[in-house]
Amino acid sequence: MSLVVQKFGGTSVGDADRIRAVADHVARTRRAGTDVVVVVSAMGKTTDQLVRLAADVSSVRPDREIDMLLSSGERITMSLLCMALAELGVDAMSFTGSQAGMITDTVHTRAKILEVKADRLRAALDAGAVPVVAGFQGVSTDREVTTLGRGGSDTTAVALAAALGADACEIYTDVSGVFTTDPRIVPEARKLARVSYEEMQEMAATGGRVLALRSVEFARNHNVPLHVRSSFTWEPGTWVDKEDPTMEQAVVTAVTHDLSEAKVTVTGVPDRPGLAAKLFRGLADRNVNVDMIVQNVSIHGTTDISFTIPEADLAVSTEVCQGLLPLLEATGVISDDDVARVSLIGVGMKTHPGVTALTFETLADAGINIEMISTSSIRISCLIRAGQAEDAVRALHAAFELA
Amino acid sequence: MSLVVQKFGGTSVGDADRIRAVADHVARTRRAGTDVVVVVSAMGKTTDQLVRLAADVSSVRPDREIDMLLSSGERITMSLLCMALAELGVDAMSFTGSQAGMITDTVHTRAKILEVKADRLRAALDAGAVPVVAGFQGVSTDREVTTLGRGGSDTTAVALAAALGADACEIYTDVSGVFTTDPRIVPEARKLARVSYEEMQEMAATGGRVLALRSVEFARNHNVPLHVRSSFTWEPGTWVDKEDPTMEQAVVTAVTHDLSEAKVTVTGVPDRPGLAAKLFRGLADRNVNVDMIVQNVSIHGTTDISFTIPEADLAVSTEVCQGLLPLLEATGVISDDDVARVSLIGVGMKTHPGVTALTFETLADAGINIEMISTSSIRISCLIRAGQAEDAVRALHAAFELA
Repeated sequence: MSLVVQKFGGTSVGDADRIRAVADHVARTRRAGTDVVVVVSAMGKTTDQLVRLAADVSSVRPDREIDMLLSSGERITMSLLCMALAELGVDAMSFTGSQAGMITDTVHTRAKILEVKADRLRAALDAGAVPVVAGFQGVSTDREVTTLGRGGSDTTAVALAAALGADACEIYTDVSGVFTTDPRIVPEARKLARVSYEEMQEMAATGGRVLALRSVEFARNHNVPLHVRSSFTWEPGTWVDKEDPTMEQAVVTAVTHDLSEAKVTVTGVPDRPGLAAKLFRGLADRNVNVDMIVQNVSIHGTTDISFTIPEADLAVSTEVCQGLLPLLEATGVISDDDVARVSLIGVGMKTHPGVTALTFETLADAGINIEMISTSSIRISCLIRAGQAEDAVRALHAAFELA
Repeated sequence: MSLVVQKFGGTSVGDADRIRAVADHVARTRRAGTDVVVVVSAMGKTTDQLVRLAADVSSVRPDREIDMLLSSGERITMSLLCMALAELGVDAMSFTGSQAGMITDTVHTRAKILEVKADRLRAALDAGAVPVVAGFQGVSTDREVTTLGRGGSDTTAVALAAALGADACEIYTDVSGVFTTDPRIVPEARKLARVSYEEMQEMAATGGRVLALRSVEFARNHNVPLHVRSSFTWEPGTWVDKEDPTMEQAVVTAVTHDLSEAKVTVTGVPDRPGLAAKLFRGLADRNVNVDMIVQNVSIHGTTDISFTIPEADLAVSTEVCQGLLPLLEATGVISDDDVARVSLIGVGMKTHPGVTALTFETLADAGINIEMISTSSIRISCLIRAGQAEDAVRALHAAFELA
């Protein structure tokens, strides 16, 4: 008998009607002869409401208690879904992260899964029941309730699919799949039938909001085929799977953009070995994730070092740089959050030169200045002014004929 | 160092302001040099909202999933309270029923506590922290989430106080203590400084809504002094403790009333041994709790048997009686839910004859007909018409000079 893990996000279980619709779909899957393990998120805006309530109550919010608070949301969804399944005659059992054997490290609010002890889920499956598991949460090696951080429910689903040897992990959401770019910006954007893990990772890392990067990495490492699809239309969506070497690769698969980056420039840094290392060690020590880095050619013995970071880390990054100015013998720090990163992604890029040239020509023709560039073997990213991001996406989507 | 368990009900933690007020009080207690273990209920109407949501989702609601659903409410309160305590500089840690070692049997929605494994709470206390425990919930011997049913949070608090050898268990609520009768009916009702466990049990069993019967029984069995008090005024409330043989006893301590009883009469039962036994065995087999029983003197060889039951059990009781009519060779069943039970309670009754006489005289003078009577050594209960309940309470409260 085949086995799928079906994960339903917050909008998919947003109210009583939606929960019944999800129950219908799970029941249909089950009756078609497939075993199902369900993973659910908290209903709709529940998590946001709990976060707001916590802010009303206290300015001090220990991570341990945040985890305890937020983990209550999925418990509500999963017990309600089990009731809806019971009404349809489907035997279902809810499992907290702890009961599902989701063992994590002890880092609250962004715990990492160490092990999945799935024996209780296997027993429920063997007994003919549908296990409904709370996403996003686990239990630490210290027996504390933990949460997995952003995209946590996707990660729960992939980890369970890997542990149970599921044939696929279906991620149900409010969009019908992965598109060549954001359809709100480019209406002719095309739904992709299939993307490779590598492409999906680059898309998730550069602003594609459909899947969290971490869950894609997990799926790639454990070879879990993902199927991203809509819980509103139930139509086939996008498969995320191993790269298929027998197929001709599209040169460019998708265009993404990200407005949540910020740029910091440290000016007048003497051109001596080791100074850049001191700067980025200082940032790493404060847990700042640096993305793009550019160091200009040295003129008159000094250089400017620019880098990008998540906007949320701008204050701490500026503070670190200011603090290091004497050590670096640098002259100043300029911070800038009015930037956007536009990226082209495609496994075919590896073997097709000329993508970079066409990218630059396209942006130049659209009157868009490129401030920084970074590339991987399957991605080109350009940092531009935030106000030009949508123009850039449209121009690149057209130039690479993605529609 | 002394130790108290402080339990806060739903209205005491109804919103962010109330949670901060509770945190202030816990912090004050802690700073006065007393160790504190806190037990909380779900916020305000949370439990009612979850029950309604479940009804919206499904007509089939397995008890296991109801328990999973409802147990989420206390988790929200306890983590928020820990945050509020953290802001006040008090080290606090929340514990689910499972983490607090509240081991129950496997009967969902009304589990019984089998054992309290309080080692994690003791470790938290030893480390100088305030444990904040989810009331109403436990974990079964099958590792399932269970809830304790009505009054469950009070029972959690008393069980923890017993297990930890606490000096007292403080039950905070929205009234300032236990009164001689319901102050909404008799404005001059007096707050009692002290009542015995036995009196409190009789009051809880006959309509006093301040404490659940079960938690009083638990406290009596484990000799845990209870202090019922207000979380709005924080003034001293009512102590519930062992009977004090050195003190002169009040003859009557309180008047209670209960509108949730119903009366069933089986008419024309032949006056033969064993028939009443068959009737009450039939009711017991359907888990109906019979309270008062009256069998009239036999006339012409047949008798009428009347009994009272909780209104909620009226339908099933009537059904049982109808089904037994042929076996009992009885003529009919009359059910009546328009009744009230008015009760007088006082340990001094044991040694003071004349209470019954004054009760009957008082009700007769008020024009109130007594339909059934039952007594224990410290209680007299009269079944009357529901519409006369408040008049009866006023008249008895005045006659026994309780103001």
